[in-house]
Amino acid sequence: MSVRALWFTEGRLHVIDQRELPKRTRIRHLRRVEEVADAIRTLTVRGAPAIGVAAAFGMVLASRERGWTPDRAARLLRSTRPTAYDLFVGIETVRAAWARGEDPGRAAMAYRDQVVDECHEIGEAGAPLFLRRPRVLTHCNAGALATVEWGTSLAPLRVAKSRGAPIFVWVDETRPLLQGSRLTAWELLQEEIPHAVIADNAAGHFMRRGEIDAVIVGADRIVSNGDFANKIGTYEKAVLAHENHIPFYVAAPWTTFDVQRRSGASIPVEERSADEVRHFAGASVAPAKSPVRNPAFDVTPARYVTAYITPGGVATPARVGALARRHGLANGLTR
Amino acid sequence: MSVRALWFTEGRLHVIDQRELPKRTRIRHLRRVEEVADAIRTLTVRGAPAIGVAAAFGMVLASRERGWTPDRAARLLRSTRPTAYDLFVGIETVRAAWARGEDPGRAAMAYRDQVVDECHEIGEAGAPLFLRRPRVLTHCNAGALATVEWGTSLAPLRVAKSRGAPIFVWVDETRPLLQGSRLTAWELLQEEIPHAVIADNAAGHFMRRGEIDAVIVGADRIVSNGDFANKIGTYEKAVLAHENHIPFYVAAPWTTFDVQRRSGASIPVEERSADEVRHFAGASVAPAKSPVRNPAFDVTPARYVTAYITPGGVATPARVGALARRHGLANGLTR
Repeated sequence: MSVRALWFTEGRLHVIDQRELPKRTRIRHLRRVEEVADAIRTLTVRGAPAIGVAAAFGMVLASRERGWTPDRAARLLRSTRPTAYDLFVGIETVRAAWARGEDPGRAAMAYRDQVVDECHEIGEAGAPLFLRRPRVLTHCNAGALATVEWGTSLAPLRVAKSRGAPIFVWVDETRPLLQGSRLTAWELLQEEIPHAVIADNAAGHFMRRGEIDAVIVGADRIVSNGDFANKIGTYEKAVLAHENHIPFYVAAPWTTFDVQRRSGASIPVEERSADEVRHFAGASVAPAKSPVRNPAFDVTPARYVTAYITPGGVATPARVGALARRHGLANGLTR
Repeated sequence: MSVRALWFTEGRLHVIDQRELPKRTRIRHLRRVEEVADAIRTLTVRGAPAIGVAAAFGMVLASRERGWTPDRAARLLRSTRPTAYDLFVGIETVRAAWARGEDPGRAAMAYRDQVVDECHEIGEAGAPLFLRRPRVLTHCNAGALATVEWGTSLAPLRVAKSRGAPIFVWVDETRPLLQGSRLTAWELLQEEIPHAVIADNAAGHFMRRGEIDAVIVGADRIVSNGDFANKIGTYEKAVLAHENHIPFYVAAPWTTFDVQRRSGASIPVEERSADEVRHFAGASVAPAKSPVRNPAFDVTPARYVTAYITPGGVATPARVGALARRHGLANGLTR
């Protein structure tokens, strides 16, 4: 079993504080929707599928507090982060149920179960791709911590390993917030999956030397032509994989698909605080007066993607939009 | 005037301790060849041209101590780092003079003056390339700190700015040791050159958005077909520049050219300690048990280089080997 990023019991949302890993495994107990919004904004909980589920439970907490309407709670939670589509799907799923007079708790549980099931389906669908390409680079964290459990990009690797493939994961450290070295490496250690952490700068070097067989990443938003947003640096790895004739895979549940949007050019990209770059684990690493640019995501054009690993199977860029529509995603936020 | 990385007076080599920048400007005063070897090994002094000059003065210190022969001192200094060619040229230049009975101090001074002059020639040769392409990405530090003064990659930008070009430098932070955010940003601040520090992961994003007009880097070793070694991550930037139709320039003095070697495949690439990736400023940023790979350099094939900016002018990959030979480099280490 993989770790769990969050769970809901006794009227509280419990989340592993991902800012403190790998040093400390501290659980935060959230009782109010504003605490959930804050946890999402501060990256206490992060990863597109996980923040969708956290926000769904945030809606549940709002429905049990005084003074919140479905629309007002949704507005608060939507304002936390702009790029991950799952966030908006999770909020809308519970908002619609609540507004219809249904039980928000039941809607959120169903939403969570669906995300968890889809991660397992991604694992099954993707595993065959890695049986003969076992040395796999990943960027950021799209493991259990990003997705409640099991993961998106790590799911096929977990399944391939369980089938005897000699999986070895190259872990990009993923500056500025080090989700690779802090979170992915920590997950892989828990499950004894062989791996090595590298500076983001070193991935191309190992690709060129023939030491990387494939690349797999998660996604924050995939639009209907296959363009997708993911953690800053993903575009660089996609171009390098293409140049080195290495397959590049994107793994995501249906909640990540924004099929109403036709190309990646219009995906909103969050810019975060300069201090994330100026400081490194609490220490100052750049002159305080030097300006900084800190986009949290980039958009990778579909032409660099070999295939998408979805709960409905593996699809090429030309077919992924149609596949998503067939799975009932024609109307964007409704599932 | 730009800053100076090192100077030799009163029988001592004085170097700015580059490990402590930008927090503190501390000068180390080295009296013995073993101290110089240690300063090179620990990156107290770094940058290919600068370590060549430091090693040349290390030979001078050895010649004034008891117990050293030219060969023994050269052996010690050669063992410090394997990739930068300038190191071996600097050592050999003074070793040969000492062995011939000439004054090692005079040989080292001449070597240093030549490197400084060549950096100014690089500035003049390269400046016209940036007058209409003023938004320039650089990786690592190839400024004054890396080259005694003026720099290689920063030299053409300094000259272009003095001629009125609206130079803006995108500074890759350059993990693991952050020579970009710590050193290049510091130099640019001293001289009031507009710039922004970015995570290495963000360079491709800004290239794709059309915000970067050109890329310029220094080099640790350039071989006769134009392949070159430089700080890890350089290869990634070169591929991304190529993919985005952005010119990619390499600036270096003649001491960086290893013309006896025919391709980059045989350049020795230093792997450094895992702790450079696992820790920063005393803080752990990855699980202690996670394995790490930490190559300090990569090798970029000549086909990604638009042109080399040398003291003898600007040359394409097809011509740079011949140009280097014309400048008297046919015999490798002799100048």
